[in-house]
Amino acid sequence: MIKFLKLSSYQKALSFCELFLPIEVYEEINVFELNNRVSFEDVFSKFSLPMSNRSSVDGFAVFSEETFGSSENTPVLLKLQGEQKVNDPPIEVKKGGCVRVATGSSLPDNSDGVVMIENAKISGDFVEIYKPISYFENVLKKGEDFKEGSVLVNKGKRINFRDSALLAAAGFETIKVYRKPRVAIISTGDEIISYKEKISVTKIYDANGPLIANGIGKYAEAFFLGVVKDSKKDLEEKFEYAIENCDCIFISGGSSVGERDYIEEVIKNFGEVIYHGFLVKPGKPLLLGKRNNIPIIGFPGHPLPVMIHLNLVGIPVLKKLGGDKNYYPKSNKGILGDPVFSIPGRVDLIMGYRKDNLIIPLLSKSDYISLAAKSEFIIKIPEDREIILEGEEVEIYLWD
Amino acid sequence: MIKFLKLSSYQKALSFCELFLPIEVYEEINVFELNNRVSFEDVFSKFSLPMSNRSSVDGFAVFSEETFGSSENTPVLLKLQGEQKVNDPPIEVKKGGCVRVATGSSLPDNSDGVVMIENAKISGDFVEIYKPISYFENVLKKGEDFKEGSVLVNKGKRINFRDSALLAAAGFETIKVYRKPRVAIISTGDEIISYKEKISVTKIYDANGPLIANGIGKYAEAFFLGVVKDSKKDLEEKFEYAIENCDCIFISGGSSVGERDYIEEVIKNFGEVIYHGFLVKPGKPLLLGKRNNIPIIGFPGHPLPVMIHLNLVGIPVLKKLGGDKNYYPKSNKGILGDPVFSIPGRVDLIMGYRKDNLIIPLLSKSDYISLAAKSEFIIKIPEDREIILEGEEVEIYLWD
Repeated sequence: MIKFLKLSSYQKALSFCELFLPIEVYEEINVFELNNRVSFEDVFSKFSLPMSNRSSVDGFAVFSEETFGSSENTPVLLKLQGEQKVNDPPIEVKKGGCVRVATGSSLPDNSDGVVMIENAKISGDFVEIYKPISYFENVLKKGEDFKEGSVLVNKGKRINFRDSALLAAAGFETIKVYRKPRVAIISTGDEIISYKEKISVTKIYDANGPLIANGIGKYAEAFFLGVVKDSKKDLEEKFEYAIENCDCIFISGGSSVGERDYIEEVIKNFGEVIYHGFLVKPGKPLLLGKRNNIPIIGFPGHPLPVMIHLNLVGIPVLKKLGGDKNYYPKSNKGILGDPVFSIPGRVDLIMGYRKDNLIIPLLSKSDYISLAAKSEFIIKIPEDREIILEGEEVEIYLWD
Repeated sequence: MIKFLKLSSYQKALSFCELFLPIEVYEEINVFELNNRVSFEDVFSKFSLPMSNRSSVDGFAVFSEETFGSSENTPVLLKLQGEQKVNDPPIEVKKGGCVRVATGSSLPDNSDGVVMIENAKISGDFVEIYKPISYFENVLKKGEDFKEGSVLVNKGKRINFRDSALLAAAGFETIKVYRKPRVAIISTGDEIISYKEKISVTKIYDANGPLIANGIGKYAEAFFLGVVKDSKKDLEEKFEYAIENCDCIFISGGSSVGERDYIEEVIKNFGEVIYHGFLVKPGKPLLLGKRNNIPIIGFPGHPLPVMIHLNLVGIPVLKKLGGDKNYYPKSNKGILGDPVFSIPGRVDLIMGYRKDNLIIPLLSKSDYISLAAKSEFIIKIPEDREIILEGEEVEIYLWD
């Protein structure tokens, strides 16, 4: 009557992403909209930046050796020979002279350094230099930012806004990026009502659909296929649609044994169940399956374990499908401020926040959505620990 | 001929956001698309969750005192009186008995705790209980997650994916959020060419337009108004459009004194220049102005200072306009791994990354975009420091 699951180590869930390959399909995206997209190829620069030596300050281009010995009291006098306009090719400096330059302008020919404007003063046809400079001081040398033929972003890198500046500076108007994986989201549960209906003691509103859709937005495109109410046929129809149109299936719910049974059955008809049940709290009934390269995750019904396993198992899978080479969840270490207790043999995942640089666990009976909303990260109590005392180091996973 | 700016403390730039008020305009957004939006109002729950006492585990609802004294060797025997279905209102338990419950099902009437399935075993018409429970153990009490009339999210809170689950569980199909501020982005510079043109030694591609558009995407809507080539009239036209249609103006460029002059002039015609020039490196010529509640930021021409001041000055302003109560840049402390040098009297902002939990500065002549792309954060060297040695604590600002 009551089925005991054959529980797997949670380590298997954490490495579920390894079973899948990136979907090698690209789209060409304008450089104004690259943030957070994953580069589909190694992007090589077509020229060097800067293309010539440039001044990195406002000031005067000089022969550096002619500034030696200068000081506030004994300035060196150099003849002002002209101005290097930002848009002009390099003009020339002759011995005993200097040329005014602005940040970014070409370094005048022959000169080998720039005296900053703060350390000089124009005095008639001359410039008083108050401070010596070293060889090529305040000069950005040709190719110092990047050299022709060097890689600007690697295939599989998630592009940040600084990368987008680099790519734009290198003259790319568009970049090939991985298409975002498409995720079919299905909520199940006889007790779920629509937002139009009035709540009652035996009913709940669906939190998991919005939770998953919002949680994956950075990494994937969400397709909410709706709520399945305890009907195997309805779930099969949604699976058929999902397999035709999506790259990944995230189901939530099925808190009763009967429900979980038919969800497992449907997955087996369409693909395979790889793990069902983990040595972890919360979220023991987590179900992981697949059909070819389509990951299928059956999350538990309560939103808290959905959040946790979406973060630690679901999003890494989506990153992997989406070409991101850096797909594991971001973890960190910290010193515990309060003791935590667990049961050896299972991983405990506890909400937490930071206070005075200490990790404070948000202990509770387990299931508060309001608590998760306030938490800053997830604290991991490994399988081999029964208690971790304050002052000990723990691993934390940041919310994605 | 050369204008020395009257330089302001960088602290003034960091608090520029304080000069502006949130734009009190909302839009109603579906709960599936709330991530990263800012709540326009305090959202109150219309009911308590859970609405009644519920089991937080799979197991057997009991009178807790009847489990006292039970153990592996001396189990307590309780009559199995039925099953509490998740969707049914509470049934009743009678003394000497128990009722099977699933995670999330209502707690049967009279019972005051749940024995986990792992600590019990069905044996004919009876259940053997192997472990005592305390009063209301494994029960989620009515209203323990949130109570009717409590605030789920406050006005001015940026909603994360866990908040969206909370709001959905509380039955909200839509939420009022602040409209994202609209940002006019203008690049200036005679030397800027379009992506269609071939690069030459005196020309550059515009990196700042894409940089700003990508950098602000999470907080604002970007309107790129194009490149102005050293034409006051062209800039005035773009300003007119921007003031009519946008909430904020971000200009970049103007590396030559002449260019900066006409940018300053145009800002003065449309509004006021509040600061021009800061005691900071890089990005000394940063210009901050406004027209009523419209912030106007004139970034320098080089992408590196644009990145830094976009992060530390520009984005906080956008967060403030967008209603976010938590608008200051996220800062953190860390231990320096290598010494850094500065000039007292100015703030130095240096790229950095973390290695073995130490803060490593990416020292360079200053201006590498490629370096910024690789960096993880900005290290701040305060005005009163000339040198900070390895082992000392520094403040870092995380990239937004």
